[in-house]
Amino acid sequence: MKMKKIMNGADSFCDETLQGIYFAHSDRIMALNGDLRILVRSDEVKEGKVAIVTGGGSGHLPVFLGYVGEGMLDGCAVGNVFASPSAVKMQKMIEHADRGSGVLCLYGNYGGDNMNFDMACEMAEMNDIKTSQIRVSDDVASAPSETKEKRRGVAGMVYAWKIAGAAADKMMSLEEVTAVTKRALDNIRSMGIALSPCIVPQAGKPTFEIGDDEMEVGMGIHGEVGIETRKMVSADEIMKILLDKITDDMPLVKDDEVAILVNGLGGTPMEELYICYKSIFEYFDKMNIKIVSKYVGEYATSMEMAGMSVTVMKLDEELKALLEYPASTPFFTNHNK
Amino acid sequence: MKMKKIMNGADSFCDETLQGIYFAHSDRIMALNGDLRILVRSDEVKEGKVAIVTGGGSGHLPVFLGYVGEGMLDGCAVGNVFASPSAVKMQKMIEHADRGSGVLCLYGNYGGDNMNFDMACEMAEMNDIKTSQIRVSDDVASAPSETKEKRRGVAGMVYAWKIAGAAADKMMSLEEVTAVTKRALDNIRSMGIALSPCIVPQAGKPTFEIGDDEMEVGMGIHGEVGIETRKMVSADEIMKILLDKITDDMPLVKDDEVAILVNGLGGTPMEELYICYKSIFEYFDKMNIKIVSKYVGEYATSMEMAGMSVTVMKLDEELKALLEYPASTPFFTNHNK
Repeated sequence: MKMKKIMNGADSFCDETLQGIYFAHSDRIMALNGDLRILVRSDEVKEGKVAIVTGGGSGHLPVFLGYVGEGMLDGCAVGNVFASPSAVKMQKMIEHADRGSGVLCLYGNYGGDNMNFDMACEMAEMNDIKTSQIRVSDDVASAPSETKEKRRGVAGMVYAWKIAGAAADKMMSLEEVTAVTKRALDNIRSMGIALSPCIVPQAGKPTFEIGDDEMEVGMGIHGEVGIETRKMVSADEIMKILLDKITDDMPLVKDDEVAILVNGLGGTPMEELYICYKSIFEYFDKMNIKIVSKYVGEYATSMEMAGMSVTVMKLDEELKALLEYPASTPFFTNHNK
Repeated sequence: MKMKKIMNGADSFCDETLQGIYFAHSDRIMALNGDLRILVRSDEVKEGKVAIVTGGGSGHLPVFLGYVGEGMLDGCAVGNVFASPSAVKMQKMIEHADRGSGVLCLYGNYGGDNMNFDMACEMAEMNDIKTSQIRVSDDVASAPSETKEKRRGVAGMVYAWKIAGAAADKMMSLEEVTAVTKRALDNIRSMGIALSPCIVPQAGKPTFEIGDDEMEVGMGIHGEVGIETRKMVSADEIMKILLDKITDDMPLVKDDEVAILVNGLGGTPMEELYICYKSIFEYFDKMNIKIVSKYVGEYATSMEMAGMSVTVMKLDEELKALLEYPASTPFFTNHNK
C-alpha cells in the first residue's frame, strides 16, 4: 500500500484541511485570535452556560472539531495528525470558552491529551476559571473491565459531547453536567474492527500490515493493537463478536432501550455500514431490546482506514431527553428531534 | 486488490443494505407493498403536489434512495449494484407517488434507466398519470459540449432533486417544476477524478486497474472511462484541471454566485475533501466569484472507490431560494437554511 492522497504536501496536510473547514464553515466557527488550531463557536453563547470543550489529534474527522456548535462543543484544540494539541492552546480555548460557570474538558483517554489537558486546566484554574475533566474510555477492546480507566476513547465521545452539550445548554451547573456525562459514559461501550490501515501523511507508510483476508478485531483508531487478528467472517458474525463483547461488559436485559452508533472509519462505504446495522438490529431485536436512536455514518474516523465500530448507549429517560435535545454543528445536526 | 467487504454474501448485498436502511429509517420511508426495491415517503404528502421520483442502481449511497423525503424525492426505484431497476417497479412508484398533478422522473442519463423510465412513463400515462422526464447529464468529462445530451449524470443530481423538490413543495405545476429544474441543470456542471477502483460484489474483481501513482481524470461513477490516466499531482493542480474544464463549459464571470458540492466517492477521507474545498475556494476567490452555498461530504459514491468530484451550480435569485428551501431526508438535511 503506497500513499495516495489528494493533498498539496504532507507538511501542509493539517493546516490546509483546517483552512478548507474554515472557508466552508466560518459562518459557524471561529479561529481564536486567527489560530486555526483553536476553533470555537462563532455564535453568541449564553452567559452563565457551562462550556464543553475538547481537543485531540487530526485525522479523525468529524472528530474532534466537527462537533463545535450549538448544543455540543464550545471549543476544540487541534493537533497534528494523531498528535495532541499543546497545553497552551488548550488553555487559551478554555479561557475563551468560559462564561463564568466553568468548563468541562471532555476528551479521549490518550497519554498526550491527558497530560496536556491536566496542565491546561491547572493554568486556567490559576486564572480563576473553574474546570472539570472527563476522559472518555468507551473502547471495551482496549483493556479489561477491572482496569477500565485504561481504555481508549473512540466514537462514544460523540454521545458524550451530545449529552454534555445538551446538559450545559439546559443551564445545569458544572457539577451537574459532569455528573450526568459520567453517568452517560457508564452506559456507553464501543468496539470496532479494521480491515485496512491508514497512512499518516508525514510518515508516508501504513500504520500496520494486514492480510487480504484478515481483520483486526478491537483495533484502536490510531491503529493501536486490538484483541486479535483473524480471518474475515460474515457481517452477522462480526457484529456478534462486537456486541457479545459489549454486552458482556455492560449487561442489557429485555425491554432496555439503547442508542446505536454505527461508525465508518473512513474507507468503508455506507452500503456496508447499513448491512452492519441490519445485523445489529436483528441481534437486539432477538433480545427484545429496543433501539430508540440510531446514527449510521462517519462520526469518528482514521482517514482512509477501512473498518467500522459500533457504540451502544443504554438509555434512561434523562439520557434519552438529552440525546434528543437539539444540536447543530457543521458536521452534526440532530435528526432525531 | 482483493474483495474485502463487510457483508453476508454477494447475492444478499443489496437486499441487506436495503433492510438496514429500512430498519434505521422506517419512521421516514416506506417500502411500497413491502417491496424494499420501491422506497417512498412515509409522511403525508400534500394533495396536488407534483411528485419527484428517481431510480437507479445500488452502490452509490446516499444516491439514490437517501434523498427520499420532505422537500426532495417522493420515491425511488432501486436496482442491483450499478444496474437499473425494472420498468414495472418504476411504474408502481410513479403511480403511488402521483397526487393528481403529475410526476417528474428525474434521474441520471444511463442507457438502462432511460429505457426503463421511458417504458414506465408510457405505462403510467396509459393509467392517466401525467409524467415528465429529465435526464441529468452534468458530467462534463463524459462528452463534449456539442453532444452534451450524451453526458452522464453524476453528483449534480443532488442539486437537481433539491431544486425540483423545493419547486414541487411550493406547489408549482408539473410544467413549472420541469422548466425550473431544466434551467437549474443548464447551470450545473460536474467533473471528478478516481484514485482507486471499486468492486461490484457479484463480480468480485476491481472495475479497472490503476497505478499506485496514477489518477483517472473524468472517470464515471461506475468506472466508465474518463479523459485520461495521468500521474498524481497536487490537490491545487487537480482542482484546477476540474474547474478549468467546468468553467470552459459554463463560463463564469466576476460577481457570479455559485453553489459548490465537493463529493467523496466513498473511500476518500473528509480531510482530503476539505483540502479540495480549500483549493476550490481559492480558485473562485481569485476570480471574484462568490460561493454562497457549499456541501462537502459523500453525496454520490461508488462504494469504496477513492476519489472525488466537484459540482458547480451557477445561481440566480430563484435558484438560490429553491436551494435554500428546507429539506429533510434520512441522508440529507438542509443545513443552509
